Amino acid sequence: MTLARLFAFALIFLAAPVAAQTVQQAAPSAQAVASVDSPSHVLHVEVTLNPEGRVGYRVTRLGKPVIDDSRLGFLFTDAPEMLRNFAFAGLSTATSDSSWDEPWGEYRTIRNHYNELTVTFAETSALKRRMSIEFRVYDDGIGFRYDIPRQPNLTQANIADELTEFAIAEPGTAWWDDAQEWNREEYLYRRTPVEEVGFAQTPLTIRTASGLHLSIHEAALVDYSGMDLRRVQGRVFKANLMPSSTGPKVTRDAPFTTPWRVIMIAPDAPALYKSAQIILNLNEPNKLGDVSWVKPMKYVGIWWAMHLDQATWNSGPKHGATTANAERYIDFAAANGFKGVLVEGWNKGWDGPWFGNGSDFSFTQWYPDFDLPAVAAYAKAKGIALIGHHETAGNIANYEKQMGPAFDLYQRLGIHNVKTGYVADAGGIQALGPDGKIHFEWHQGQVMVRHHLKVITEAAKRHITVDAHEPVKDTGLRRTYPNWVSREGERGMEYNAWGVPKNPPEHEANLVFTRMLSGPMDFTPGVLSLMGKGNTPILSTLAKQLALYVVIYSPIQMAADLPENYAANPAAFQFIKDVAVDWDDSRMLAGEVGDLAVFARKARGSPEWFLGAVGDEQERRFDVSLGFLQPGRRYEAQIYRDGDDADYRTNPRSIVIEKRIVTSTDRLAERIAPGGGTAVRFVPIAR
Amino acid sequence: MTLARLFAFALIFLAAPVAAQTVQQAAPSAQAVASVDSPSHVLHVEVTLNPEGRVGYRVTRLGKPVIDDSRLGFLFTDAPEMLRNFAFAGLSTATSDSSWDEPWGEYRTIRNHYNELTVTFAETSALKRRMSIEFRVYDDGIGFRYDIPRQPNLTQANIADELTEFAIAEPGTAWWDDAQEWNREEYLYRRTPVEEVGFAQTPLTIRTASGLHLSIHEAALVDYSGMDLRRVQGRVFKANLMPSSTGPKVTRDAPFTTPWRVIMIAPDAPALYKSAQIILNLNEPNKLGDVSWVKPMKYVGIWWAMHLDQATWNSGPKHGATTANAERYIDFAAANGFKGVLVEGWNKGWDGPWFGNGSDFSFTQWYPDFDLPAVAAYAKAKGIALIGHHETAGNIANYEKQMGPAFDLYQRLGIHNVKTGYVADAGGIQALGPDGKIHFEWHQGQVMVRHHLKVITEAAKRHITVDAHEPVKDTGLRRTYPNWVSREGERGMEYNAWGVPKNPPEHEANLVFTRMLSGPMDFTPGVLSLMGKGNTPILSTLAKQLALYVVIYSPIQMAADLPENYAANPAAFQFIKDVAVDWDDSRMLAGEVGDLAVFARKARGSPEWFLGAVGDEQERRFDVSLGFLQPGRRYEAQIYRDGDDADYRTNPRSIVIEKRIVTSTDRLAERIAPGGGTAVRFVPIAR
Repeated sequence: MTLARLFAFALIFLAAPVAAQTVQQAAPSAQAVASVDSPSHVLHVEVTLNPEGRVGYRVTRLGKPVIDDSRLGFLFTDAPEMLRNFAFAGLSTATSDSSWDEPWGEYRTIRNHYNELTVTFAETSALKRRMSIEFRVYDDGIGFRYDIPRQPNLTQANIADELTEFAIAEPGTAWWDDAQEWNREEYLYRRTPVEEVGFAQTPLTIRTASGLHLSIHEAALVDYSGMDLRRVQGRVFKANLMPSSTGPKVTRDAPFTTPWRVIMIAPDAPALYKSAQIILNLNEPNKLGDVSWVKPMKYVGIWWAMHLDQATWNSGPKHGATTANAERYIDFAAANGFKGVLVEGWNKGWDGPWFGNGSDFSFTQWYPDFDLPAVAAYAKAKGIALIGHHETAGNIANYEKQMGPAFDLYQRLGIHNVKTGYVADAGGIQALGPDGKIHFEWHQGQVMVRHHLKVITEAAKRHITVDAHEPVKDTGLRRTYPNWVSREGERGMEYNAWGVPKNPPEHEANLVFTRMLSGPMDFTPGVLSLMGKGNTPILSTLAKQLALYVVIYSPIQMAADLPENYAANPAAFQFIKDVAVDWDDSRMLAGEVGDLAVFARKARGSPEWFLGAVGDEQERRFDVSLGFLQPGRRYEAQIYRDGDDADYRTNPRSIVIEKRIVTSTDRLAERIAPGGGTAVRFVPIAR
Repeated sequence: MTLARLFAFALIFLAAPVAAQTVQQAAPSAQAVASVDSPSHVLHVEVTLNPEGRVGYRVTRLGKPVIDDSRLGFLFTDAPEMLRNFAFAGLSTATSDSSWDEPWGEYRTIRNHYNELTVTFAETSALKRRMSIEFRVYDDGIGFRYDIPRQPNLTQANIADELTEFAIAEPGTAWWDDAQEWNREEYLYRRTPVEEVGFAQTPLTIRTASGLHLSIHEAALVDYSGMDLRRVQGRVFKANLMPSSTGPKVTRDAPFTTPWRVIMIAPDAPALYKSAQIILNLNEPNKLGDVSWVKPMKYVGIWWAMHLDQATWNSGPKHGATTANAERYIDFAAANGFKGVLVEGWNKGWDGPWFGNGSDFSFTQWYPDFDLPAVAAYAKAKGIALIGHHETAGNIANYEKQMGPAFDLYQRLGIHNVKTGYVADAGGIQALGPDGKIHFEWHQGQVMVRHHLKVITEAAKRHITVDAHEPVKDTGLRRTYPNWVSREGERGMEYNAWGVPKNPPEHEANLVFTRMLSGPMDFTPGVLSLMGKGNTPILSTLAKQLALYVVIYSPIQMAADLPENYAANPAAFQFIKDVAVDWDDSRMLAGEVGDLAVFARKARGSPEWFLGAVGDEQERRFDVSLGFLQPGRRYEAQIYRDGDDADYRTNPRSIVIEKRIVTSTDRLAERIAPGGGTAVRFVPIAR
């Protein structure tokens, strides 16, 4: 798509290394030792050394500070810190402009265009250790990582903490998901001044006073511990690696590189969304080869009924996963064009105290009222992919023992997709420790990071895709392992089934600019009944449930509601049947964090476009150009919009479904009701 | 002093235990299961259980919320959390009103008057573990701790984290010392809205919008890890135990109790200062028996010259700790009424890369130009206590090997005081791990908490007192081990020798209401030259240097300046010679956090009183009653006040020294210059 071009590379070597001085000197100013511009000179990164020999970096955008001088370094559990007394020891530069195709995704082709600067530092003190900092600088963000070579005084790194800082230069507003609990990500996003952020998970999104949009996250989290952010004071954040039960937060043999620390930097909210491509670009290319067996799809399943308390995961009179029920869902899927059926609660182990234990789960044995081979055969005959389910309750010791046979079983039965689950409320993940005993670990710790990748690679060997719930956060590994199709990692639709509080109307407009920057989310939209457990209303209009299929990206999308609720809403259901799940292109046409998001996406391998818009608790309006449509072509716009009297509180079911003929020179202006949304399908009209 | 009295004990048993419910229920409201009032019904504490079976507590003062419902619990590295599924299992109550005498201190007698409530909870889930929460409720604050009994399913607790919360009910202003680095406490206090606190060390002090003064700290930190506070969101803080190199932050065999978590709650700043008596009250009584060998004193020493770069710790032409120099200081002390002389740099090991290593230090060998036995004998002959010095550079592996012989040496030579040091800039404390290798540990971690107490008890066996620098924080253990006379643990005078930034004028007015709530500080005041290294001015007036002896409490107080600088300032020096260091009573007469502190203190075993006042960078005035003086008696007030034209920036040396005759019916009204202070000695006039 784009031509590889070489840009002039701005590199300045400003200062000789500064001799290390006493640490008692407070607030020493740092001097740049090297710098690099982004390809179009939008961003400028300086790598710095201060008089104590501390390495740092700072970032400007068009000459204005974005990240003030921020320090880098490590603590170890068994060796002196690597933090001070560094001297400059060399640098290298590179530039790259290439593009690559996503086998599935939001974009057919992604351009990877950056300038690279690697600066090597060596300690002047006794141990003479070396480390390099590798920066990749894009026009809309940066990534950097530590590169630790193998060396006499650093053969194994037992990292007590990584001291990476992010000093936000400007005041601003932050959207952040606090780390309230040690092992959960399912909290509502908070909106506060940057100075009021407490302990935040990533992505942490900030809109600065001057309107710049930033998000801090990480890419390629492999064999390392996940990074939270703790605000130490003012607008200075520090990396906080997830702990482990055994001391070091990370143990790695040198040489190794850390995950990329990523700062997306964009002039507005839509541009921020697109800048998340950096996360993918910083991951390794596909390691699985031909992944044509990974198939984006819409699916239904035995799931929502359990959240409504109309069925149970465990055995008994209300057991959801019966052969008969599964076949009913398969029939429904086949009749309505869905490609997958998820069955939860099919396997033995749900009757014990699984919630927070998980040791009873068998992943190869099914309940007597559920005949897995028969259901699999029935599905196959109907052209439906059965989606398996591995709820571990966070007991990976039990799961890892059975994982091989469990995947073998699925492979044997032609089951090519599995949803995993890690509801771990016992106080963490139960894993086998180095002492052969059960250890309790963190969801985002190194043990779990390794586990998830093990699941992915074991699944890939059997051509099985994975949709992880209560997962490790997404850091773009789907590029490297395209069978990692989706995950949860935030409050999904199930919170709308349960009690108070349900997801508020702004939830999805928050997610788009926070959680969704990390990757696809199996949000499970499409509850057209608009009702949770005990007929408690969901805080959404009907049209919004449709819009979510376009707004919240995932290559697998559930139609979460009960079949009978779809039968009762055939007109709205039509959009769910029609909407694509895989895209050639995605464009945010308008957006403000937490207020509004309007997407246009082109269906992959099809001339159809889809538009989805969501607002928040207020009435919102948008007026966007349809310039994305192919010029000169006429389209039928099948519009599902909030009725003029729609309001999630008073009249959520009010919807207008109408058709218009449009072209690329037209605009689309719509009102989004409080709690509402808009969904549009653009179908080219035969010439 | 006070009579033991029994008060009516308000206890309400409000609700039967609530069955555990799904954790998916968000924000369940907690119900009180028991409550207790403070003796005069000022404070009211409720112990709560929420529908998930989570234990919590809340506090009101005179009916108004102070601490909103705050959760309690534990994570373990090798066992399920103890957090949910608790049911009420019993309670006990007690009331106590007694008093005890400090062998030395700010008060002769301290009243310990509280109501106690212990509530026991048992898990309804499989492990059926039990824990008790023990509350002691004073009129000016509360303490609570976990009491973990020995039980089949909890024999050894490997604590991953303690989940104790502190939810501040009201908005307010916080003064806090951030945990910028992993192992230091020497930072300036920050003042921000509560919602802008990041990661705070304790004590964390808060003035609420309604004027209430709170401080969160801990008492009796024994065989546990120190607690920082992380603000998770809004005004909710969570305990954050210091990490360890080996996994669990704390490892304890059951039964055990945690340190007390303390919330001081007072109507104004002076009352907050007094409420710190709770910290002492929550510690065990003196375990050392007769401690008449612990002698409060003023001292001088070979120290400030090193910070001025006029002498060195290491050997060479500028070596400070020579026999001749030590004898000069001993002569100076004897001539001026000081009882102690500190000598730093006497022992071998200062010539290597000690800063951040410490393995070269010998604690039993002296440099050739320093004859320790001769100096000790010389001091003894002059009636001076030689103060030994053990700088470890944080290498406790090296120190612990030598500690016994080192203390034996001191004991043999009649040296009864030692200053220890833990300047650990290698990335933490170097300690011998369970694997026999060097581990890097945290200053406030369990390893170091154990180490400090080992130093104290080993020293006590030899009748040696300890003044720890770069110490574990003070949690009142001086009550139990009265040879733990003082410590550092914040920015002292040495920062005024070094470069930028020096301690600002408000520093001491911050310390009084934060660091000083924890216990004595060896601040080393009295630099009458008002000059740091390279003749850089200290941000203080002359009078303030005198006031610090009364304002910053320590039973050992250094006259830090060079002897020649005292010789050049005989009039001001007279106050330093006269001022007491041990007190029968201490009263803050006026105070505002960070602005002003005016103390009156009665010299122990003497009819003399002293007054000390410090302000901040602004001009401050105070007008206080002298009602603390003995009625009917006349006193000569020897007043050392800022000259009318004094200002730390322009005229810091302007001082007025004057005498007045006063009685208890008089008032004292003085101006404190910007950066200034006032010092007064009240000497009864013979009748």
